[in-house]
Amino acid sequence: MDIKDILERLSRGELEASQAELLIKKKPFTDLGYATIDDQRWIRNGVSEVIYAEGKSTEQIAGIIDRMKENGQNNILITRLSEEKALAVRDRKADKIKDFQYFADGRTAVIGDFAPADGIGKITVVTAGTSDIPVAKEAVITAKFLGNEVMEIYDVGVSGLHRLLARADDLMSSKVVITIAGMEGALASVIGGLVSCPVIAVPTSIGYGASFNGLAALLSMLNSCANGISVVNIDNGYGAAYQASLINHIR
Amino acid sequence: MDIKDILERLSRGELEASQAELLIKKKPFTDLGYATIDDQRWIRNGVSEVIYAEGKSTEQIAGIIDRMKENGQNNILITRLSEEKALAVRDRKADKIKDFQYFADGRTAVIGDFAPADGIGKITVVTAGTSDIPVAKEAVITAKFLGNEVMEIYDVGVSGLHRLLARADDLMSSKVVITIAGMEGALASVIGGLVSCPVIAVPTSIGYGASFNGLAALLSMLNSCANGISVVNIDNGYGAAYQASLINHIR
Amino acid sequence: MDIKDILERLSRGELEASQAELLIKKKPFTDLGYATIDDQRWIRNGVSEVIYAEGKSTEQIAGIIDRMKENGQNNILITRLSEEKALAVRDRKADKIKDFQYFADGRTAVIGDFAPADGIGKITVVTAGTSDIPVAKEAVITAKFLGNEVMEIYDVGVSGLHRLLARADDLMSSKVVITIAGMEGALASVIGGLVSCPVIAVPTSIGYGASFNGLAALLSMLNSCANGISVVNIDNGYGAAYQASLINHIR
Amino acid sequence: MDIKDILERLSRGELEASQAELLIKKKPFTDLGYATIDDQRWIRNGVSEVIYAEGKSTEQIAGIIDRMKENGQNNILITRLSEEKALAVRDRKADKIKDFQYFADGRTAVIGDFAPADGIGKITVVTAGTSDIPVAKEAVITAKFLGNEVMEIYDVGVSGLHRLLARADDLMSSKVVITIAGMEGALASVIGGLVSCPVIAVPTSIGYGASFNGLAALLSMLNSCANGISVVNIDNGYGAAYQASLINHIR
Amino acid sequence: MDIKDILERLSRGELEASQAELLIKKKPFTDLGYATIDDQRWIRNGVSEVIYAEGKSTEQIAGIIDRMKENGQNNILITRLSEEKALAVRDRKADKIKDFQYFADGRTAVIGDFAPADGIGKITVVTAGTSDIPVAKEAVITAKFLGNEVMEIYDVGVSGLHRLLARADDLMSSKVVITIAGMEGALASVIGGLVSCPVIAVPTSIGYGASFNGLAALLSMLNSCANGISVVNIDNGYGAAYQASLINHIR
Amino acid sequence: MDIKDILERLSRGELEASQAELLIKKKPFTDLGYATIDDQRWIRNGVSEVIYAEGKSTEQIAGIIDRMKENGQNNILITRLSEEKALAVRDRKADKIKDFQYFADGRTAVIGDFAPADGIGKITVVTAGTSDIPVAKEAVITAKFLGNEVMEIYDVGVSGLHRLLARADDLMSSKVVITIAGMEGALASVIGGLVSCPVIAVPTSIGYGASFNGLAALLSMLNSCANGISVVNIDNGYGAAYQASLINHIR
Amino acid sequence: MDIKDILERLSRGELEASQAELLIKKKPFTDLGYATIDDQRWIRNGVSEVIYAEGKSTEQIAGIIDRMKENGQNNILITRLSEEKALAVRDRKADKIKDFQYFADGRTAVIGDFAPADGIGKITVVTAGTSDIPVAKEAVITAKFLGNEVMEIYDVGVSGLHRLLARADDLMSSKVVITIAGMEGALASVIGGLVSCPVIAVPTSIGYGASFNGLAALLSMLNSCANGISVVNIDNGYGAAYQASLINHIR
Amino acid sequence: MDIKDILERLSRGELEASQAELLIKKKPFTDLGYATIDDQRWIRNGVSEVIYAEGKSTEQIAGIIDRMKENGQNNILITRLSEEKALAVRDRKADKIKDFQYFADGRTAVIGDFAPADGIGKITVVTAGTSDIPVAKEAVITAKFLGNEVMEIYDVGVSGLHRLLARADDLMSSKVVITIAGMEGALASVIGGLVSCPVIAVPTSIGYGASFNGLAALLSMLNSCANGISVVNIDNGYGAAYQASLINHIR
Repeated sequence: MDIKDILERLSRGELEASQAELLIKKKPFTDLGYATIDDQRWIRNGVSEVIYAEGKSTEQIAGIIDRMKENGQNNILITRLSEEKALAVRDRKADKIKDFQYFADGRTAVIGDFAPADGIGKITVVTAGTSDIPVAKEAVITAKFLGNEVMEIYDVGVSGLHRLLARADDLMSSKVVITIAGMEGALASVIGGLVSCPVIAVPTSIGYGASFNGLAALLSMLNSCANGISVVNIDNGYGAAYQASLINHIR
Repeated sequence: MDIKDILERLSRGELEASQAELLIKKKPFTDLGYATIDDQRWIRNGVSEVIYAEGKSTEQIAGIIDRMKENGQNNILITRLSEEKALAVRDRKADKIKDFQYFADGRTAVIGDFAPADGIGKITVVTAGTSDIPVAKEAVITAKFLGNEVMEIYDVGVSGLHRLLARADDLMSSKVVITIAGMEGALASVIGGLVSCPVIAVPTSIGYGASFNGLAALLSMLNSCANGISVVNIDNGYGAAYQASLINHIR
Repeated sequence: MDIKDILERLSRGELEASQAELLIKKKPFTDLGYATIDDQRWIRNGVSEVIYAEGKSTEQIAGIIDRMKENGQNNILITRLSEEKALAVRDRKADKIKDFQYFADGRTAVIGDFAPADGIGKITVVTAGTSDIPVAKEAVITAKFLGNEVMEIYDVGVSGLHRLLARADDLMSSKVVITIAGMEGALASVIGGLVSCPVIAVPTSIGYGASFNGLAALLSMLNSCANGISVVNIDNGYGAAYQASLINHIR
Repeated sequence: MDIKDILERLSRGELEASQAELLIKKKPFTDLGYATIDDQRWIRNGVSEVIYAEGKSTEQIAGIIDRMKENGQNNILITRLSEEKALAVRDRKADKIKDFQYFADGRTAVIGDFAPADGIGKITVVTAGTSDIPVAKEAVITAKFLGNEVMEIYDVGVSGLHRLLARADDLMSSKVVITIAGMEGALASVIGGLVSCPVIAVPTSIGYGASFNGLAALLSMLNSCANGISVVNIDNGYGAAYQASLINHIR
Repeated sequence: MDIKDILERLSRGELEASQAELLIKKKPFTDLGYATIDDQRWIRNGVSEVIYAEGKSTEQIAGIIDRMKENGQNNILITRLSEEKALAVRDRKADKIKDFQYFADGRTAVIGDFAPADGIGKITVVTAGTSDIPVAKEAVITAKFLGNEVMEIYDVGVSGLHRLLARADDLMSSKVVITIAGMEGALASVIGGLVSCPVIAVPTSIGYGASFNGLAALLSMLNSCANGISVVNIDNGYGAAYQASLINHIR
Repeated sequence: MDIKDILERLSRGELEASQAELLIKKKPFTDLGYATIDDQRWIRNGVSEVIYAEGKSTEQIAGIIDRMKENGQNNILITRLSEEKALAVRDRKADKIKDFQYFADGRTAVIGDFAPADGIGKITVVTAGTSDIPVAKEAVITAKFLGNEVMEIYDVGVSGLHRLLARADDLMSSKVVITIAGMEGALASVIGGLVSCPVIAVPTSIGYGASFNGLAALLSMLNSCANGISVVNIDNGYGAAYQASLINHIR
Repeated sequence: MDIKDILERLSRGELEASQAELLIKKKPFTDLGYATIDDQRWIRNGVSEVIYAEGKSTEQIAGIIDRMKENGQNNILITRLSEEKALAVRDRKADKIKDFQYFADGRTAVIGDFAPADGIGKITVVTAGTSDIPVAKEAVITAKFLGNEVMEIYDVGVSGLHRLLARADDLMSSKVVITIAGMEGALASVIGGLVSCPVIAVPTSIGYGASFNGLAALLSMLNSCANGISVVNIDNGYGAAYQASLINHIR
Repeated sequence: MDIKDILERLSRGELEASQAELLIKKKPFTDLGYATIDDQRWIRNGVSEVIYAEGKSTEQIAGIIDRMKENGQNNILITRLSEEKALAVRDRKADKIKDFQYFADGRTAVIGDFAPADGIGKITVVTAGTSDIPVAKEAVITAKFLGNEVMEIYDVGVSGLHRLLARADDLMSSKVVITIAGMEGALASVIGGLVSCPVIAVPTSIGYGASFNGLAALLSMLNSCANGISVVNIDNGYGAAYQASLINHIR
């Protein structure tokens, strides 16, 4: 927050007290009634606000996109977007959004460009099974959108260790590893023991019975005996990639 | 209960014992077979019985409305009413109910008039996200029906504090704040620290994975480190507004 | 927050920008290293910071008391204070604290005076059983400390309804009712149906087996079919009384 | 088991050892491949086997009915039977089943006759709300099928105590009370305090949010502070009625 | 409640209205401050109030005993009474209580006499293991106190079926069976299939690991595939015996 | 792993170090992008990789089958395969898969031949109810595919013990018993007490209310008081059969 | 059960019917009042009854030992025996028990001899950490008592895979592997992928926080993606060893 | 792993195949019987193995220290070490360990030197309350041991936002923030919204009632609406610091 700048302008008489107060409080967001858009997040956090589409109507999503574009934000990431809504948004905004890309396997859309890959190194996204790939794709698209080189390694669960060990070099040369697994989530611990970079573990809701929709994998990952592992919410590929990107862009 | 009045009339010989017994026991409700309508709730609690539509058939809802109208209750609130049922009830009662209003976003209907806003001050309804708005709308309509001025502030979750702080004056000038949030429910604690009026927290089922359908927000709110907060059931906008109205009408 | 005053003084040249910034940010609390005392809470919220003693050492509690006294706060409430720690704090501060009162049944201490009872009416604290009394006492002392008239009604659980109904007049003449119950927590719903004032329900950890340390009562209260009820954390007599006092002092 | 009779016939030479073994082991049931029908339950337990239709195909249900009829059991109770399956079974067996009655509100069917009401007294089925009636109906039909007089009292939840108290005489004159409630399930405790007969409590899955599909009511009922209450599974109207019938026929 | 009598006396002028009101409301209990004793429970429910000692101080227990004795109740049951408290109560009341018996294995005390066994038949208390005996003893003493013949069968868990089958005659000749089991609680289902009388199942907290302090046995019993079973709280031997006694004394 | 062979060839100069490294790491699996097929599992574990179809698209399943066939694996087991997908796979591969068999009741398909039954003895699959049969069928087909003689005994739950005892000889002559039960899962303990061979218990999600989708049966089986029992995931007929086959083929 | 023998003797007139009935029902156990000892378990299950000491008094344990010895059972295993009780039992029985061995690290005692190791091969007991060793020791002593060769491998958790892989030969040459792990329990899956013999997984209560006393490891193991794994109760080293011994002695 | 080096030496004939196999498998750890020490972790992961003291005896801890020292590892971190064990270890090793430092508030010991602070920037450790400080101290000591500059900010929970905002500059200039909070854990979300670096959230077991030993805070943090947050196990200060150090040393 540039509160100091505002205060200095105030002390130089360039602003009145009431104006300064207004600036401090009112400036950085837009109230659409149904949504309060954080127009300055890119200043504070380095990344524009991302649209989480779940529970929002097509109208609301389109309205937010409009406001973002008006605010000069041309590259927009939309997560948890169903195919049906994606088509509706695209149609409605056809004149304005010429660059709308939808990735059905990750239920994610990108408007505008992916940022150039300017991180320290690569982020590796690993899944235990084939069924975990949709969560992985959300992570992959997010990481690329945020300007990272991404490597994908799928279906290397611990019941066939050699599949995983064969990729040891790829894993060891990563700057961050995102480990995605459902069922018992053991992959996080095994990878945590192999690499010396941070591991972000994503439990998935893949499984049945006593997996309790991802609870088993979540608890497993939280209790990992390996070092360097932290965990995000079940199926939260986006969140893992966001943090991985922060790490990969650390200065 | 006016038991004393009945007893005094009994002692003056204006009533027989068996009649008095009947009055004490039988008077205040109507048994429709499938529903026992509390005809005197407005005497005891100051508010007429509200119809909770979930799990009731169109016939049952219509029957209860009829009975309430016969009993002289012209202003009726119906909550958890699906659009489909709302249409069916409206059609069926078309001749009788000229003043049926349905609010789809809050799944709530009002027959008759909203009470005049005669509370001490205003009730402010705040949500953390856009997806929490349906629960907020149930609260807003309920609070208005019960005679309260209502202010609505939406999508000011704690991840962008300035959005919330910009509304600090609105919050601080409220008599009661209803805080509605899913996911981690942190909004309740932050608002609790800002205001000096009672805060009623409503966890919502918005979220996924480890939100466990609102459990995370519920536990978060129950454990708030801020003072002056109490909690109602997940998604219970109605209940929060009802208590807020009681507080706002305290004498 | 008197931010506007500070800004006006800044614009009149009475303050430099850096000083104003300092005032805005640094003024309202004291950092003791282990605790950051909110010196202006009484300005913002109308009530001084309360010391929650659980997990704090005798030294820490004594240090916080010292700081509060230096800051001009002479009336202090300490909750969750074991008898052992109470004695240690009293001995250590014997020269300074001449007015330390410890209430063993509510594990609560008060330094200085209880505020005069200047609320709208009385707060009634009701328990379902004898075993719930310690939680009730925490509520009673808190409510009195905050300036409320308090009525206590104990052991009137719903398995003997006449015990409760006999107190109906007391309940109905209350401005707020705090309902405290363990086991199945049914008392909250029954009282909620009897009174027309707000009811704050406190589940207690009393019970065994499937009470799961208060979970049964908590869920029961959250799902109450009666109107006007909200809930606080298990055993949180303090929190219930704090909100009740806010309601009873509403203006 | 008439094992002694078989053994005596064996010792009198009326049976060979291998035959006796067969009789002891093989006689009392029929193996249909997909179901092992307990042909002698009516001898051991006084009641014929009841068909629990959930998870059984129309073919399986029809096959079991056939076998029961062949075995001389003409009065058959079928629970958890969807309307769709009921129609299919009725059509398929149209020639054989002339006396098939389906009760949609309790999802229960009866083939043949209800037993005459020969219990000690009446069983009273009480619900807290209108939405609990389907579970109540399962109980009512079961109790009648098993030969009991049944009284039904619906929608008398504890938030309007006078509705319940007005039925106190009906409750007090019952031999067994089946109390059915969702949400917080407080009705069981209140009734338990009013009556001096056994109370069987049935939690229902009615509610939302922190009712967790009946868990709140279940825990509430298990922790009841009233005496004389026991509990069956969530929504298990059948099980409550079965035990109530046993009690009402005790000799 | 003899409300009708009171009303009739009122209509005959034998009582004034205010007196009648007092009688109706105030008569049936004594308020000791910390406990509200239900002096008329024996009239309403046929059994005097029982003292649940957990969470009550020695002073409170002694005070309640005094009041009960003054009220003419000479036979008193005290449950959940630790040996230490039992000794303290006995010493304190030595002059008054000449007939105090403490049963350490069931943590239960009886003052005065056990009622004569005047039930319909016998109540059988069965445990799966030796470790379940303390819960069984609470049930046995309660049942005898309430006037029942009791048979005890211990350590006949389902892993050695012949132990159980050997007692089949004893079980089948019971009027009520109380089945007490920890671990997996399977005993209830097996006994439920053997007998044709009501079975009351008591899960115990015996076990370790995934027994989760009795949760496994509780869920198992609630889901029993056998008919005629209802369940009480974990370790609640008293509650099972109370209901069993009601059943055994049904008229 | 034939690592030693590779190393020996390396030391004899038949391989270069980089080649050896490649062989060790890369050889035993195929990376299809979406799946990493373990081509050597049959060498290491004695059984080819099985296709778990849940969460895989028709294309993915077909691709994996192709690769397995190319790798010389002609007998393939596919589990958790919906009828819809089964038809799609069969159609798509019509030219290649001449020997595709789909078993709808167990949602399982087999390509090629069942292995000859060459185990030590027979595996017996027992269910408590008719509704548990689909899980049983998954186990039966798996066990047969892996080369075992299988006996099926259905609907012999513990509420009718004689049904079970009549099959005692069949059970006692088994080498492994797979016990499948929902609801309270008591069957495992009773069978565990009858037989002297290993029992593998499979809880099923059959039931309602407090069965919590198989949790009750799972906990029950884990806490079994009988010896020789271990447990697999809820509804995991495949897993039980796999381990049973290992036991039945032990050498 | 040798019921056929008894029946044949009956049919030959060597027994009367009442005697036969007695034999069938009464013979195979001893009722000590507090315990019903299964005297014929060794006939039925091949292993004598084992004493589970938890929740049994010293007197009860000693009484059971006496009875077993009288019954000719000289080799006795006692599990969950605290050191204190072990000393008390040893002292009390000093004259009779000359061969009492107590293993403090596994809280297990053996009276008499370990059976000769006559299994098919060896059972390997593996732990993830040092803290899991007490559970492992219970398994080791049980397996040896039951006549098995046992190999112990400790502290080879998956965070350091090479520690585990170095023991691959030992694991692969086992007939059964017992895998014991707390925290996230991933060891079971990794071992399951390495070996082709049955794996019995034992979750332990080792860990803190979200391990929830072993729940995390339990769920992890139940959801293992590897084949051939089954699970026993948390900390149940005895149960795992018992089943492992059955497998290792299969004929 | 230097497997390639070994292979190259093998191909040059400097090693035999069997020796190479041994080296690959056996070299990198020491088996002490009760512990398998990973002697090469510092090569693979950059950090030596850390001793987790919980559940290890004094003898075991001392033995592991000895082995590490012999292996040339002079700087050792020991976590979860009680004061009692710390003293015992120090006494026992007095001759060898001249540089043993014990930090009671974090239950952590360091042998040897803290690494020089050579990270990219500083790690900031923030707590919501005073009671969370012990977990914070574990994180602080770990981070310093691993060579990081650490800033500590305590007791700045969200109920007094200005306390937190006053430290905004400190937070914004951090490279990683470790956020430690019990109760409702809202601090993580608020900080996540303020900073643009990775936030690692540590839920603590501080709280009571519905905090369920940290579950509320854990779920809250997993569901955070802010970006850039990941979570470790309840009370796992060590794990958070370890990952933070990896991030702060990324290259």
